[in-house]
Amino acid sequence: MMRFLPGSVTLVGGGPGDPDLVTVGALRALRAADVVLYDRLAPLECLAECRDDCERVDVGKVPRGAFTPQERINQMLIEHARAGRVVVRFKGGDPFVFGRGGEEWQACAEAGVPVQVLPGVSSSISVPALAAIPVTHRGLTQGFSVVSGHVPPGDPRSSLDWAALARTHATLVVLMGVKNLPAISAALLEGGLDAGTPATVIADAGTPRMRIVHATLATVAEAATREGIRPPAITVIGSVAAPGLLG
Amino acid sequence: MMRFLPGSVTLVGGGPGDPDLVTVGALRALRAADVVLYDRLAPLECLAECRDDCERVDVGKVPRGAFTPQERINQMLIEHARAGRVVVRFKGGDPFVFGRGGEEWQACAEAGVPVQVLPGVSSSISVPALAAIPVTHRGLTQGFSVVSGHVPPGDPRSSLDWAALARTHATLVVLMGVKNLPAISAALLEGGLDAGTPATVIADAGTPRMRIVHATLATVAEAATREGIRPPAITVIGSVAAPGLLG
Repeated sequence: MMRFLPGSVTLVGGGPGDPDLVTVGALRALRAADVVLYDRLAPLECLAECRDDCERVDVGKVPRGAFTPQERINQMLIEHARAGRVVVRFKGGDPFVFGRGGEEWQACAEAGVPVQVLPGVSSSISVPALAAIPVTHRGLTQGFSVVSGHVPPGDPRSSLDWAALARTHATLVVLMGVKNLPAISAALLEGGLDAGTPATVIADAGTPRMRIVHATLATVAEAATREGIRPPAITVIGSVAAPGLLG
Repeated sequence: MMRFLPGSVTLVGGGPGDPDLVTVGALRALRAADVVLYDRLAPLECLAECRDDCERVDVGKVPRGAFTPQERINQMLIEHARAGRVVVRFKGGDPFVFGRGGEEWQACAEAGVPVQVLPGVSSSISVPALAAIPVTHRGLTQGFSVVSGHVPPGDPRSSLDWAALARTHATLVVLMGVKNLPAISAALLEGGLDAGTPATVIADAGTPRMRIVHATLATVAEAATREGIRPPAITVIGSVAAPGLLG
């Protein structure tokens, strides 16, 4: 069992938003915390577990809106720890899946602040599951890839080889990719992935507003636009995304 | 919040083994259960949450040992549900990541038994995290692939394209691949992945026996043999697996 010591930082994954999908360790961390720095996508109901004298700080990033820069978050983690407090960084999903947890860990380590991670239920796997899509399935796929769609294929900032991703025969899960779906599906088609490959977009998973749009690789970008899908949404591409696979 | 109704089956992910990494929903499910069918790799301490009159059935699969065939597990789930019981299928990791949860769901659905899934903390992400390896990291990788190494590259039963996996520029996490590491690393080298790519094997994660072996793609198979690594173990291949990345 993990210990939450004064002067240390714990990076805590809060899962995809459903309070059922928070870990026992995350609740223990929140109860032990002197200060919690939390994101917009963390399951905020869980903050009720904090002690009355626990300081709760919203550092959530809103697309194109006000947010706390990452460098400032790193600095706050270090300052609170140096003041001898039990510091918890509470995030949506898992801290190491596009959560910038690695950067926060590095900043703490460089400052000599003890840091540890408490993994969470990743949205990359659990959001498809909540839409009855298994990312792996016997006889269909022996693996899955999870990629960020934030930077489109062909962009100089992109380090992924989308043509290779098109050919792995693994399920492809695209996070943060709604805006770039036209470029992403075009790159995968060009890479040789079949136009009829099932492609499903899941928006607002785990909330009463959850929406599931079934399409194919050829039609998914248009379907998402037509249905007015907005972030946060996840796209699953592969045979496991076929409607009604699980019956 | 999920409800656990008489006559229904809930597939529950128990995480990588550490009781801190079990979800709140998993504990609620175990408390509500009339019968629990559990695996060897599920966090067994949590079975203490079950009511005294809850029937606990070990259906764990032991490599090359006695086990309950999948078809029999499916049948048991259906029979217990048809008898009007609250049925929980308790697994290690996440039910949909090589957990055969999809097959159990299909069997229940075909039998007309209501079935739902409660995702868990997947070992594919959390085991690297427990070894201080982030599967994604800003400036290093914009994605990760999780594959089964149970079937070696080149085997007619393998559906993965290992040459494509070698070229995605995403982190590669290989589960159940210790025995086949020589064939897997050879296929990735042949696919063009650099011989000096960091490759780390993590065995018995989340237990006091946890071991971490740092190597490169060229040396990892030999290093795992030399260190006597046995299943269950996970191999992470990519720049994020470099020793001391997080400091």
